[in-house]
Amino acid sequence: MEKGRVLLALTGIHPGRWRELLAAEREVVLEPEGASDPSITYAVVWKQRPNLLSSLPNLRAVFSIGAGVDHIFADPTLPDVPIVKVVADNLTQYMTEYVVWRVLDHHRQGMLYRTQQQKKIWHESPQRPAGDISVGIMGLGTLGRAAASVLLSLGFAVNGWSRSDKPVKGVSTYAGEAGLIPFLNATDILVVLLPLTPQTQGIINYGVLKELRKRNGLGGSVLINAGRGKLQKDADILRALEDGTLKEASLDVFEVEPLPKTSRLWNHPKVFVTPHAAATSDPVHLVPIMLRQMAAFERGEKLENVVDRNAGY
Amino acid sequence: MEKGRVLLALTGIHPGRWRELLAAEREVVLEPEGASDPSITYAVVWKQRPNLLSSLPNLRAVFSIGAGVDHIFADPTLPDVPIVKVVADNLTQYMTEYVVWRVLDHHRQGMLYRTQQQKKIWHESPQRPAGDISVGIMGLGTLGRAAASVLLSLGFAVNGWSRSDKPVKGVSTYAGEAGLIPFLNATDILVVLLPLTPQTQGIINYGVLKELRKRNGLGGSVLINAGRGKLQKDADILRALEDGTLKEASLDVFEVEPLPKTSRLWNHPKVFVTPHAAATSDPVHLVPIMLRQMAAFERGEKLENVVDRNAGY
Repeated sequence: MEKGRVLLALTGIHPGRWRELLAAEREVVLEPEGASDPSITYAVVWKQRPNLLSSLPNLRAVFSIGAGVDHIFADPTLPDVPIVKVVADNLTQYMTEYVVWRVLDHHRQGMLYRTQQQKKIWHESPQRPAGDISVGIMGLGTLGRAAASVLLSLGFAVNGWSRSDKPVKGVSTYAGEAGLIPFLNATDILVVLLPLTPQTQGIINYGVLKELRKRNGLGGSVLINAGRGKLQKDADILRALEDGTLKEASLDVFEVEPLPKTSRLWNHPKVFVTPHAAATSDPVHLVPIMLRQMAAFERGEKLENVVDRNAGY
Repeated sequence: MEKGRVLLALTGIHPGRWRELLAAEREVVLEPEGASDPSITYAVVWKQRPNLLSSLPNLRAVFSIGAGVDHIFADPTLPDVPIVKVVADNLTQYMTEYVVWRVLDHHRQGMLYRTQQQKKIWHESPQRPAGDISVGIMGLGTLGRAAASVLLSLGFAVNGWSRSDKPVKGVSTYAGEAGLIPFLNATDILVVLLPLTPQTQGIINYGVLKELRKRNGLGGSVLINAGRGKLQKDADILRALEDGTLKEASLDVFEVEPLPKTSRLWNHPKVFVTPHAAATSDPVHLVPIMLRQMAAFERGEKLENVVDRNAGY
């Protein structure tokens, strides 16, 4: 098989570094050029324009530059070629940092101490040991399992929920619809790392937040969403914060991004907002993995980390 | 050996829970009672009144309720009996949480993102991988080694400095006066967990901060002190922050505690202040360890974790 050309189609992300690094081994065509081009074998995409990929007669594989692939499925004429999610250690490491950082900030009462500092109040608040706090991770893929491992080493109790049962050492796992309420009832800090699919869209709603454990040393339950914004209902989170169902939240993703200036999440005193920055796709780490996969594919090997079209991730 | 009585002498800490838990196995005398009492065999202390311990004719051992023992040595007539520092897993775990929390908050640009949130700015700042950042831990005792282990699992490069060389797996170690400058030159985030002794008093001064590594992805060096306040010069930290020698600092301890309202550290935008709350001595975890040690001592066994009087810790 000859060396395929690459179409680079990124929306809202500057293509410069990606193009430069891909061009070390491949001819690269930059969108909007390249539509219908029969010489293009691969597409490297982020939120590609609808109907672009179906115009390519000889497309053999699509590579997502993020861990999530829901942005690819938004295309109504997506051709039936393998979709590869690039799993980089680097992305996993960034996500683990974000999750551990946010869990510790809520556990160690960062919001309280920052408020006290502003008022020059020297007062030590009682601190519960990590073993009294259950962190519940929704989504036990590579990202969820990596975060669980560091949280366990810090002494937290860790629960996990996924679509089908996935045993993870040291983690109390729950699966499917039947496992959701028991999982939430045993969880103080909810960490959302789910893929976005028709089944998970809007799953983080008021009813789900209401099931989180209340009898704990944190003084209330906490939500951390580092998955996708459309997993959550922004308005339900605000309602839960306002009636005390939630004590605090750390949100890296939102229903609409960038988060509109009018959103009350921006200046809610119990919410920490980051601009979808938990785990950034870094071309320096991801492009070599893509190039390696393309070369292996052309030698007749199987592509790794191909998306399951039925599951949607 | 008969079952000895305990004198409880705590300054600035409510003795209620300590007394109750010690009383489960021992007769307890509460300071200011108990001076010169020949029936007292043990003292459990925090910043005991000078000359109190030397008045006890049959004192056999002193137990510190914190990991640091400098508060005990402040007594000019300290009798020559074993001083036991109680090393509890719990205290180690709290300190690890604090160190990892603060390292991640600086590494993941918490101060920047909190400022951006206040202004409703949606802007992702470039993020360096943990492997590009060296965390340097001063003090490689139980606390320093435990924090190093979790930082390594997060992917940080970790340096360590101690009085005498202590090899720690995965950590680049430096020792003594000769190792100090090379250690600082290789460190982006300085974590201070040293014991306070005449040799370490004031060690965190402007000259030391000036030696920290500048050429890094953090945009400047960072200081985290969770050891003792008298290890640092508050005024030197302010000077280093103001001239850019330091980018940010997290301080749990201060030269004078509580931190005076007049201190400019309280409202410095690049300083995070906590009220000596990094690792609190919890009687529920510490008292059983003390009671076990007393019983073992009376069976003729050696006391564990006895302070080296020459080293002062």
